[in-house]
Amino acid sequence: MSFLDSEFFQPLFEALKRDHPEDIRAATSAYNAADLAEFIESSIQDGDAGLKLLRLLSLEQQAKVFGYLGPDMQLVLARLIPNKELVTLVTAMSADERADFFNLLDENEQHALFQSLASREREDLRRLASFEEGTAGALMTSDYAMVSSGMSVAAALSLLRNTAPDKETIYQAYVIDKDHRLKGAISLRKLITSAPGAIVDTLMATGLVSARTHTGQEEVARLISRYDLLALPIIDDNERLVGIVTYDDAMDVAEAEATEDIHKGATVGRIDTSLKTASPFSLYRSRVQWLVILVFANIFTGAGIAYFEDIISSHIALLFFMPLLVASAGNAGAQSATLMVRGLATGDVSAKDWGRLLVKDIMVASGLGLTMAAAVMVVGIFRAGPEIALVVSITMVAVVLIGSVIGMLLPFLLAKLKFDPATASTPLITTIADVSGVLIYFSIATAILGL
Amino acid sequence: MSFLDSEFFQPLFEALKRDHPEDIRAATSAYNAADLAEFIESSIQDGDAGLKLLRLLSLEQQAKVFGYLGPDMQLVLARLIPNKELVTLVTAMSADERADFFNLLDENEQHALFQSLASREREDLRRLASFEEGTAGALMTSDYAMVSSGMSVAAALSLLRNTAPDKETIYQAYVIDKDHRLKGAISLRKLITSAPGAIVDTLMATGLVSARTHTGQEEVARLISRYDLLALPIIDDNERLVGIVTYDDAMDVAEAEATEDIHKGATVGRIDTSLKTASPFSLYRSRVQWLVILVFANIFTGAGIAYFEDIISSHIALLFFMPLLVASAGNAGAQSATLMVRGLATGDVSAKDWGRLLVKDIMVASGLGLTMAAAVMVVGIFRAGPEIALVVSITMVAVVLIGSVIGMLLPFLLAKLKFDPATASTPLITTIADVSGVLIYFSIATAILGL
Repeated sequence: MSFLDSEFFQPLFEALKRDHPEDIRAATSAYNAADLAEFIESSIQDGDAGLKLLRLLSLEQQAKVFGYLGPDMQLVLARLIPNKELVTLVTAMSADERADFFNLLDENEQHALFQSLASREREDLRRLASFEEGTAGALMTSDYAMVSSGMSVAAALSLLRNTAPDKETIYQAYVIDKDHRLKGAISLRKLITSAPGAIVDTLMATGLVSARTHTGQEEVARLISRYDLLALPIIDDNERLVGIVTYDDAMDVAEAEATEDIHKGATVGRIDTSLKTASPFSLYRSRVQWLVILVFANIFTGAGIAYFEDIISSHIALLFFMPLLVASAGNAGAQSATLMVRGLATGDVSAKDWGRLLVKDIMVASGLGLTMAAAVMVVGIFRAGPEIALVVSITMVAVVLIGSVIGMLLPFLLAKLKFDPATASTPLITTIADVSGVLIYFSIATAILGL
Repeated sequence: MSFLDSEFFQPLFEALKRDHPEDIRAATSAYNAADLAEFIESSIQDGDAGLKLLRLLSLEQQAKVFGYLGPDMQLVLARLIPNKELVTLVTAMSADERADFFNLLDENEQHALFQSLASREREDLRRLASFEEGTAGALMTSDYAMVSSGMSVAAALSLLRNTAPDKETIYQAYVIDKDHRLKGAISLRKLITSAPGAIVDTLMATGLVSARTHTGQEEVARLISRYDLLALPIIDDNERLVGIVTYDDAMDVAEAEATEDIHKGATVGRIDTSLKTASPFSLYRSRVQWLVILVFANIFTGAGIAYFEDIISSHIALLFFMPLLVASAGNAGAQSATLMVRGLATGDVSAKDWGRLLVKDIMVASGLGLTMAAAVMVVGIFRAGPEIALVVSITMVAVVLIGSVIGMLLPFLLAKLKFDPATASTPLITTIADVSGVLIYFSIATAILGL
């Protein structure tokens, strides 16, 4: 984050203070589009100032910076810009970012913008904006480079040269037949190192990895990462090429998905915007559901304690060890669950591995339980004598083993039942471990100490 | 994961069963290098079979597949291959993967391999293998494309064409001066669309984003993702270009870093290999440390309960509500901590935002506390009468607020003290919330109910 310190933006701040357009324009040239978007987002509270800065950039740069802005800021600025200017800006944006922006607008705004666009952009937008959020269709761009089957290398190169300005990438060109079906791909590297007269079909890579428009964005990101692709071609149900997803979008998806999984691991639901700009109410809404569910789940733990009131009353020293025993079960369970949930998410482990992993988890948890029992045994003897120390040590081994196994199995069970394995969050595992820990502890205590 | 089902590999399995080299070779052509590596890793237990499959591939494909293999499998195979064959294979690998592999070998093996390499690879390896794990230097490759300052577009294109086979990417060529200092970058897109006689210096992009050899790999991945780069140039302390890190390596780093953060969030330490192949002992070692620390931390909770033994004995019904109150504090705290830790990791929030976020967290937590207090009030009245219900409700608001604020502040405090904010794991927050929850609950109970 250090590179985003205000020091980094100091020259721009000063130019804005002097308020000379030429000065400001000169200052902006030292920054990338992503930086300028960050600056507009974080340093300029009112939209007018952001707009002023944006207008000083070239149209190409404007479109790039606008694409990097978050949805909230995009809306603020769009509502300040006259329709004609907005149309120019939107036309200059890349097709996928244009579609994302379009989906933010309300119906009237969409209609107004739509009417003013040239028919080519209109058609394109109609198609791209129609795909469901979170799918390859919603993520892809239609600005891909293509050449026709049967073309020579020279013709392909000349085509790429001429269409380059409008394409997201020309480093991978897709070879299509007359029905727009994907036949293969040829890299620009291959094109510039091949004989000009050669036919692209003889040089292209075939058996391409591709995805469908309805493929989930997580899977799209995984394919791009797994096969180290520059872009993943997206085909429709008639095998026709309709778009590509580029690696930079895949990186953004992978980051967003990791964030979502991390949040889920602590029972935080989906937050559509950044943490910094999220409203208190939207944060409340993303957090309240599981907290309330877990309040009720924890009543069982209370009921468990109430059930054992007699043994607790007669050996009140048992209470001293209760928190550390149930917490240990929960902690061990949280570790196992987290390992499995992440392993399943990255594809490092798959559903069929559960048996082998269970055996390993039992070995690991036994080792952990014995280590922790030894630690707690010492405390137990000093604090409450050998009898209670024995109860506490046996309980520790049992609850760590059971907590860990529950934590390990639950993600697989959830996956089997078609739920998201990430639902096996640490707070949920902790709650389950609390209930079972209390029951196990006081049962063992009753058995050994009597009433 | 579905695409990695055994069905996907069925043709290859069958070809291996028939055991005809030509058959097997034909079957492998349907798979990408990443797939074949996965197949060797997961389906073939003994190294000999993996080696047999590997040897049927072209040298180029061999080097690619070998690069995709995990460190364990690389070592198994390397130890089965005669030195001469290994040298050929290693020479065909990309420079960065070669250096990573080299660092796995023991000293004798390194020496043997080193002696047999051609001097160019030797020099390169000596430099790349010397950088500390986790830095840009260790991640970068020296197979970058470069052109000299002052060259014409035609000369640059011809140079790229001739050197293409040895380069990781030629889509971004770096312009260097006679002292090998980085002056700018020119994309292949720009080169093929510019006049052949133009000088690259007039066309190149300047003010490049770059990193130093000692920059952390997390920062490298963040820069590549933030600026949507194909590759990030790496310079040494004399401003000379020494390598590049490409987007595909950045994606791998981002995934590994996210996994590490997710594991840390549940107090699981670093695991060097995959979960599937990790030994029980290495898993034990990655998990035991925090579990034992937290056992001792939880003694404070026990001590807290012991301190309030009198009020508990006289109002044993209070125990029923203890688990859900302390758990709620922990859960709310875990949510806040997780939001902050991830926000800091992605750069979504920065250290200086803590004040604004604290205000927001207090608002959110108050809302959550009131909602949960209402839920528990109903249970309290039915279960234990209005007086205890009052105690429980007041406690709920207090502990959720305090738990959440502790969870929110701790990551910032850790960052300030130069610790990793991710140390604010859910189990740690839960433990802190347990201790404070118990103290607050029974203090409020004593105040309202008397002894």
